[in-house]
Amino acid sequence: MIDRHTSGVFIIAATPFDASGAVDFASIDRLVDFYAAAGVTGLTILGMMGEANKLTIEERHAVIDRVLARTDLPVVVGVSDAGIANLADLGNYALDKGAAGLMIAPSAGPAREDRVESFFHAACRALGPEAPVVFQDFPQSTNVPVSPALIRRLSQDLDQIVMLKHEDCPGLNKISTLRAEEAEGGVKRLSILTGNGGLYLPQELARGADGAMTGFAFPEALVGTVRLFRAGQPDAAEDLFDRYLPILRHEQQPGWGLAVRKYTLMRRGAIACADTRAPGPKLTATDIAELDRLIARTGAKTKGM
Amino acid sequence: MIDRHTSGVFIIAATPFDASGAVDFASIDRLVDFYAAAGVTGLTILGMMGEANKLTIEERHAVIDRVLARTDLPVVVGVSDAGIANLADLGNYALDKGAAGLMIAPSAGPAREDRVESFFHAACRALGPEAPVVFQDFPQSTNVPVSPALIRRLSQDLDQIVMLKHEDCPGLNKISTLRAEEAEGGVKRLSILTGNGGLYLPQELARGADGAMTGFAFPEALVGTVRLFRAGQPDAAEDLFDRYLPILRHEQQPGWGLAVRKYTLMRRGAIACADTRAPGPKLTATDIAELDRLIARTGAKTKGM
Amino acid sequence: MIDRHTSGVFIIAATPFDASGAVDFASIDRLVDFYAAAGVTGLTILGMMGEANKLTIEERHAVIDRVLARTDLPVVVGVSDAGIANLADLGNYALDKGAAGLMIAPSAGPAREDRVESFFHAACRALGPEAPVVFQDFPQSTNVPVSPALIRRLSQDLDQIVMLKHEDCPGLNKISTLRAEEAEGGVKRLSILTGNGGLYLPQELARGADGAMTGFAFPEALVGTVRLFRAGQPDAAEDLFDRYLPILRHEQQPGWGLAVRKYTLMRRGAIACADTRAPGPKLTATDIAELDRLIARTGAKTKGM
Amino acid sequence: MIDRHTSGVFIIAATPFDASGAVDFASIDRLVDFYAAAGVTGLTILGMMGEANKLTIEERHAVIDRVLARTDLPVVVGVSDAGIANLADLGNYALDKGAAGLMIAPSAGPAREDRVESFFHAACRALGPEAPVVFQDFPQSTNVPVSPALIRRLSQDLDQIVMLKHEDCPGLNKISTLRAEEAEGGVKRLSILTGNGGLYLPQELARGADGAMTGFAFPEALVGTVRLFRAGQPDAAEDLFDRYLPILRHEQQPGWGLAVRKYTLMRRGAIACADTRAPGPKLTATDIAELDRLIARTGAKTKGM
Repeated sequence: MIDRHTSGVFIIAATPFDASGAVDFASIDRLVDFYAAAGVTGLTILGMMGEANKLTIEERHAVIDRVLARTDLPVVVGVSDAGIANLADLGNYALDKGAAGLMIAPSAGPAREDRVESFFHAACRALGPEAPVVFQDFPQSTNVPVSPALIRRLSQDLDQIVMLKHEDCPGLNKISTLRAEEAEGGVKRLSILTGNGGLYLPQELARGADGAMTGFAFPEALVGTVRLFRAGQPDAAEDLFDRYLPILRHEQQPGWGLAVRKYTLMRRGAIACADTRAPGPKLTATDIAELDRLIARTGAKTKGM
Repeated sequence: MIDRHTSGVFIIAATPFDASGAVDFASIDRLVDFYAAAGVTGLTILGMMGEANKLTIEERHAVIDRVLARTDLPVVVGVSDAGIANLADLGNYALDKGAAGLMIAPSAGPAREDRVESFFHAACRALGPEAPVVFQDFPQSTNVPVSPALIRRLSQDLDQIVMLKHEDCPGLNKISTLRAEEAEGGVKRLSILTGNGGLYLPQELARGADGAMTGFAFPEALVGTVRLFRAGQPDAAEDLFDRYLPILRHEQQPGWGLAVRKYTLMRRGAIACADTRAPGPKLTATDIAELDRLIARTGAKTKGM
Repeated sequence: MIDRHTSGVFIIAATPFDASGAVDFASIDRLVDFYAAAGVTGLTILGMMGEANKLTIEERHAVIDRVLARTDLPVVVGVSDAGIANLADLGNYALDKGAAGLMIAPSAGPAREDRVESFFHAACRALGPEAPVVFQDFPQSTNVPVSPALIRRLSQDLDQIVMLKHEDCPGLNKISTLRAEEAEGGVKRLSILTGNGGLYLPQELARGADGAMTGFAFPEALVGTVRLFRAGQPDAAEDLFDRYLPILRHEQQPGWGLAVRKYTLMRRGAIACADTRAPGPKLTATDIAELDRLIARTGAKTKGM
Repeated sequence: MIDRHTSGVFIIAATPFDASGAVDFASIDRLVDFYAAAGVTGLTILGMMGEANKLTIEERHAVIDRVLARTDLPVVVGVSDAGIANLADLGNYALDKGAAGLMIAPSAGPAREDRVESFFHAACRALGPEAPVVFQDFPQSTNVPVSPALIRRLSQDLDQIVMLKHEDCPGLNKISTLRAEEAEGGVKRLSILTGNGGLYLPQELARGADGAMTGFAFPEALVGTVRLFRAGQPDAAEDLFDRYLPILRHEQQPGWGLAVRKYTLMRRGAIACADTRAPGPKLTATDIAELDRLIARTGAKTKGM
């Protein structure tokens, strides 16, 4: 189970489909193995970049089952939903099957902070006291801005909220604010893993993040950066990171980046087919040539590392 | 089947739940009968105010089955979804069972007009050439603004798009623009039914709308207004409408109004329980006292009509 | 000066222009007299519906001067601005000239509650301790949702914030929440005047609002409704209100309603020219015929009141 | 004057203030010289990152005068405004004084494409046929999404619109689409300079952009990248770019990055004081230490280039 001290890299896993649009379970196995071989600490499945909102409930169950059957690594499951009951049903399914935690983003409705707060109280009540919950703070996507004070209040009032998936942007000072409060004492520690494709990872680590929860198609870059940083070598960590930054920032383009990510994973042998489900992004021949060039440049820069 | 000349009142149906949160099928029967007794032309189920996004697919199937079993009126089914495949599966299910049309709103993603256009082309391709489709234009809720020119282009290029559910606001000139183009000739007629709880119905009819597709808990008000207007009595239509306007505008408050609507339907005997699914709105004692007073005022004003 | 007990109707004043687009000062005089004759308690100038963001600073100064020279009624001046310094300069100008208060909406930038809070602290610091400030809570326009708790905190921490211009929607429970806290004691009273064109005025008064701050072109309707309500005749107040509701709801259409309002004011002799400044809304011949009909219906319903 | 073939780097200039918040004209001179020494093709002043919306009209005039007096490089002036008349007044002032072009973003109001189109027609009519206009397409900031088809239509219908400031994201395919249309013939060429802090510059150049219009505090990086690319050395261009990418992506954080940029400009001797006008971002001691480290790393990587 994840807890308030969890650290490392939880990779946001893509959901592979075949050319007919069906979930490709064989590729799920391959992808899990690929992530494990890269040294990730855990996986997060059915997040936004896992196209969860285009999967039926049955498909989500099947994806959960398959991933949990393939790995002993801790697996966090995205369960964001417009309705509390469906959210809780999926969450309880995942926990029963062995998930290590559940990730929830405030749904599109409750943009006002008091409504976000009620929503998380209701969700945690429905999930029960044993469910470890990750609060996904991603206002660029949810359109729900959240103050550090509300994050702290949720962390204090709800024992289940053990982790922040931090991807507000600009968001570096949110980390500093939360860690400064903890240093003063009297509040519970919150695990903080960061998102946004890893775009600010070295800075986030220096400010007190425990690692990353994001989905870059070169997971070894995230793993290496976090490992070196936590080993007390921040400059080496950032040198490593910087070599991957050109393609990382290319993949991190909102929405469209998912197609970049899946193509890269296919090129690297991790999945069989790069398709997203409609109406997802598709790469043109120009996009692919551009990406192939960036992949080649990345390979040249990182060879032998 | 709905077509480009469909007119009248298609009532947006609430989805009744019991106190445990389960779909209340007996109340579905009662509610369908209530709407039919009010003289509606048809029903629209599983729309936004039908809390469709809080129902599982199985529940949506069951609601479709129950409603279609209860009535011979034409039934439009809301099938908006983040993914084209799920949208098409639900749409085909509904059409197989006897639905008269399908309603689609542009999903949150594709806010740019070229993306909205691609989305509807893909959706219509997936649904097939026989599916009559209602374009729901509700930017206040979808955050997707759409020009009259795009509506016209979709209507021209896609034979399936036979109806506009008009609820842009301000939107009166959208109706006038579309009707003026049709009067000039060379374009296909589009049926236009209006939403927004009916708040501007007399003006919309005068500008060429064919009726209403919305969910006011006094459907007889919408039916009477449309009937009188189409009988050539616009002043009588508006006099009737104005008597209901105070409670209509109260019910039309975004989001919260659903709780007002369901309570009113319960008070009128149309459903057994007024609950919405969490995280939906709930009425306080103050809200209920306020609403009871408005219902009583409405009753006094409309007695014997 | 406005204070925490101010009540009544502060009419949001239009800014009249002539056909060349210049501020029409003679019409300002006429409009002020028209509002005064309708019995308003005060005026609010240079609000959103006063097209303040299309006036230069010099024009804003001239409008302030002209209005204050014409009337002894209290005048609130809208001073919302992207920059604190400009906001404070305009505010101090207005107060020096005799304004009774200043109205500020959170600017587009600071959507997060902690940023809204900092913004108002900075604004109040720049304005000084003597400036009475109205917090304009209008998320549909500003895109800045604000919890009741933040409004209370601003009211408690900043002595200058004496009034809430309430126009969140749905917003009736915001009034109830704030008044319930005051009834429990230990917090400062806040004057609450409501906006949204007056669309929910009878309900807002019943929940504890002190009156209206909005701009309906029949100000006598707002004045009469508030007066009767405060005289202990809520049903008579609402009967009066309901007669104006059809045209009130027509005028209240977001953005476009300003053209309706100015045309109505022109028709009633309050201003010489109905033009808004580009890119403002313009009425078509259809719009005008529709509006003339609504004005005539309103006249017939309210004759002799 | 800019035209449809303009290329190179137009640096978005910061507006320097002193510690009292006043415009620092001596620093304007220094900053203009700094940019010129870096080899920029031109300057763009009074853009969003020039804090134009916090300057009075008098201050904007004074900034225009000072910059134009200091340099013979072409200067584009941002004139975005809620009102057409004020926009045209400022635009005509700038052109009279010798500006090379005017930049306009669709204002917050007209999110629907037909309204954006009307707005630009009205703006160009008010500015007159001789005004060269840059369309700023920055939906992340304006909240106004724009299809490639509308950009093309504006370019075709309005001779004045000679340049696109491209900063939609993801936006690479917008460039490809526009260039493919031009390659097919029958449409006017549009100069395309790209923004977003330069984050995707090498890819944008490869897709047909003519250069950059953005404000990175190491303008020599933008200049060098564009120069090498246009000299037929795309790999050398990207190698150069990649060395600056870590600090470029740090500076590019929305909103907050302006404080990073101004601090960096101060550290490099280009301006005397890094302050932004309230309510602008301010750096903490942690922010500054982090930034100093990034500046040092950048210096080490790019030494002697």
